[in-house]
Amino acid sequence: MLRTGCLLRALRFFSSAPCPRHKPSGRLSVRDALRAQHTSGERVKVQGWIRSVRSQKEVLFLHINDGSSLESLQIVADASFDCRELAFGSSVEVQGQLVKSPAKRQNVELKAENITVIGNCDAKAFPIKYKERHPLEYLRQYPHLRCRTNVLGSILRVRSEATAAIHSFFKDRGFVHIHTPVITSNDCEGAGELFQVEASSKIKAPEGNFFDVPTFLTVSGQLHLEVMSGAFAQVFTFGPTFRAENSQSRRHLAEFYMVEAEISFIENLQDLTQIMEDLFKSTAMMVLSNCPEDVELCHKFLAPGKKDRLEHMLKNNFLIISYTEAVEILKKASQNFTFTPEWGADLQTEHEKYLVEHCGNIPVFIINYPLALKPFYMRDNEDGPQHTVAAVDLLVPGVGELFGGSLREERYHFLEQQLARSGLTEAYQWYLELRRFGSVPHGGFGMGFERYLQCILGVDNIKDVIPFPRFTHSCLL
Amino acid sequence: MLRTGCLLRALRFFSSAPCPRHKPSGRLSVRDALRAQHTSGERVKVQGWIRSVRSQKEVLFLHINDGSSLESLQIVADASFDCRELAFGSSVEVQGQLVKSPAKRQNVELKAENITVIGNCDAKAFPIKYKERHPLEYLRQYPHLRCRTNVLGSILRVRSEATAAIHSFFKDRGFVHIHTPVITSNDCEGAGELFQVEASSKIKAPEGNFFDVPTFLTVSGQLHLEVMSGAFAQVFTFGPTFRAENSQSRRHLAEFYMVEAEISFIENLQDLTQIMEDLFKSTAMMVLSNCPEDVELCHKFLAPGKKDRLEHMLKNNFLIISYTEAVEILKKASQNFTFTPEWGADLQTEHEKYLVEHCGNIPVFIINYPLALKPFYMRDNEDGPQHTVAAVDLLVPGVGELFGGSLREERYHFLEQQLARSGLTEAYQWYLELRRFGSVPHGGFGMGFERYLQCILGVDNIKDVIPFPRFTHSCLL
Repeated sequence: MLRTGCLLRALRFFSSAPCPRHKPSGRLSVRDALRAQHTSGERVKVQGWIRSVRSQKEVLFLHINDGSSLESLQIVADASFDCRELAFGSSVEVQGQLVKSPAKRQNVELKAENITVIGNCDAKAFPIKYKERHPLEYLRQYPHLRCRTNVLGSILRVRSEATAAIHSFFKDRGFVHIHTPVITSNDCEGAGELFQVEASSKIKAPEGNFFDVPTFLTVSGQLHLEVMSGAFAQVFTFGPTFRAENSQSRRHLAEFYMVEAEISFIENLQDLTQIMEDLFKSTAMMVLSNCPEDVELCHKFLAPGKKDRLEHMLKNNFLIISYTEAVEILKKASQNFTFTPEWGADLQTEHEKYLVEHCGNIPVFIINYPLALKPFYMRDNEDGPQHTVAAVDLLVPGVGELFGGSLREERYHFLEQQLARSGLTEAYQWYLELRRFGSVPHGGFGMGFERYLQCILGVDNIKDVIPFPRFTHSCLL
Repeated sequence: MLRTGCLLRALRFFSSAPCPRHKPSGRLSVRDALRAQHTSGERVKVQGWIRSVRSQKEVLFLHINDGSSLESLQIVADASFDCRELAFGSSVEVQGQLVKSPAKRQNVELKAENITVIGNCDAKAFPIKYKERHPLEYLRQYPHLRCRTNVLGSILRVRSEATAAIHSFFKDRGFVHIHTPVITSNDCEGAGELFQVEASSKIKAPEGNFFDVPTFLTVSGQLHLEVMSGAFAQVFTFGPTFRAENSQSRRHLAEFYMVEAEISFIENLQDLTQIMEDLFKSTAMMVLSNCPEDVELCHKFLAPGKKDRLEHMLKNNFLIISYTEAVEILKKASQNFTFTPEWGADLQTEHEKYLVEHCGNIPVFIINYPLALKPFYMRDNEDGPQHTVAAVDLLVPGVGELFGGSLREERYHFLEQQLARSGLTEAYQWYLELRRFGSVPHGGFGMGFERYLQCILGVDNIKDVIPFPRFTHSCLL
């Protein structure tokens, strides 16, 4: 670490003295205070928000939290410190001695020598009430304040840990990280509805597009990752993607995050499914090891029983069945489906649910889908009479489709035909051209990050695992 | 690491056998092959693209690259392997023995036992020519192919390393990562021009907005980070931001990446500048240590002399001067400026350039700007007669403004007045409300990621440090 010191050199240049540099304050985060091993009464300063107040005759107990962990730090103060401002939600700075706590619930506590209220909390107007456990639906009305509750705090810490774990997963395996673009002129790669983008000045006074062509928000970074996979054998991206779907479902958002990877020189789906399974498990293990209390809070209060489900998924090998086998299983089912299962038709939510349960609530890869159901870039299996492509979806308990992937059609003439059949020849000349210069077999996948969080935490509604949810009729803040 | 093995458990569920799992192939990346320490003739498989071919009477030399490093692996083969398809740009798989190389330029080489051409390269049509060093302007015409050159490969590997380094920097310091939204209904926070977003179906058949309100692409995650800094004392975000500016300059893009951080409980700008300087230096050190060859390539071929400039920046403390001092320096300058420097006016590019040179090409923080120049959320210094706010910009050699930051106005009544003055009271009620419930002094900054890469690599044009540049009149792919 580089630390800067005095500014003597600076003084050479200027007649007037620059501002003096401050020494870093002796501030300790709540997390670091709670982890202190040797508490021989060091003087420290802790800052945070009051989560609870308990006033006794001679002693005042406070719990303060600064978002560094779910657990709060207990402050023990003389009753003389008590005042109206020391209330739930207020921000405070406490100086004192860190000592071993006599209580069993915590390792250390802070014996206050000084308490300063930094900012009051208007309790009447504050929509989060002391000692109440508000439903997630209620909290969604307050996107600017809900992160101040325990449950959203835990979910967002898990989200942050999972993000870091995903970056580490790929970096450790030598993948190059690529920022695929958000604004794109590709308008027909996906089935979902698109958002269009235009400079607002051009909307007010139309005079041609800002980019000269109509542009859209990306629905996937795949095609751009494929560009990169012609030079880097392993690439990934992790960014926002968009669908203008008119859906209020508990599994859809207009703006959501996708983890996407593309791997060159692979020739079979099992090389892909292996990486997908490793990514799922390794990220979950990292989260469980780095913030177990946060995961526990979710499992305990939001999704009782979901802890066992997660452990079950982590200790078992994921399953692999073909689309054709999946349809056979559905046909043999005693259950009546709204949509009759049939070879050549898409799997519906009810089918996905049945298949996962049939597999003992272990995630299951469905591979080799009918060619007619899938987009132009998936690799033709050249089989028959039931013509399939090398596609793969991962279905997981509670969420349904979590990953989608495929081998890509790397053969120039096959791809050329597929583009012609889809009427996309002109628009995707650049994509076809990638196959003219050292084309290689390759494949990749995308994982919906919010659905992943729903799956491991057992959170029912996708709107509760993203800081600022965007969906039809709603874009708060 | 979790590795999956046999699928016995799976077989319980299905009568038809699922696809067998493949063993991971014995494939070695070029980077790993080059790093091999003990080369006692292990048989390995390496896959990549041919970067050079040298055919001698009895021996054939190939260099193959797979994007894992700048350096390629030398293949030594019997001349009988020679064929027309083994040409620049083709993809190949080589099996053979990894042996110590007699040549000085490399540690190891691969003695080929088998060479398979995977994909030919149509040399005539390929815009990248063998042994030519194409100018960056030329390569920009081929956004789908330019990553296959050494120079773009190096820049993109550095970008990937810098991304990882930034995530590590914040994680190591206990910051919580937040995905701030891309689509926002805040329409007036910044000075730049905005992109508007609408579902394309609604553009074709207008029937109200998709989100019920007009929505825009974010220009900064700051306000959303401030929401989070009311619960987490340290937060950061690293994502795309947008400006619909009609600029073709070498420093502007319509879509670019920003690293933004927000820190609660800080009360002076020096706590902020310290983190900014640490972020700049620690990221550069990490990049230099993880991909020195890539940085060297850029310094050698793109920006001779820029290596010294980087070292100079890294080994010196950054300077801090006030805006008022900066104006004094400019007034005393012997140079004639197009814009006459004057207290109360914005610093122009020519001024920034002069100041950095005046400071001996060391990055310099300019602090405490006139209140009238800055947005409503910056903290009032309550000074006079020249009224300033606690704002800070970092100017760096070659690029100009790299960071912008400030302490935020955390005092309810000050902020209320500022909002009223700007006519934003209604639109920012939610932002004002953050100050009613345990408000704390806080501040933060944003760093332009592409400009950072330009600065450390000495790349002149911002379009060359992002995989897919978007700017006025151009959105390729």
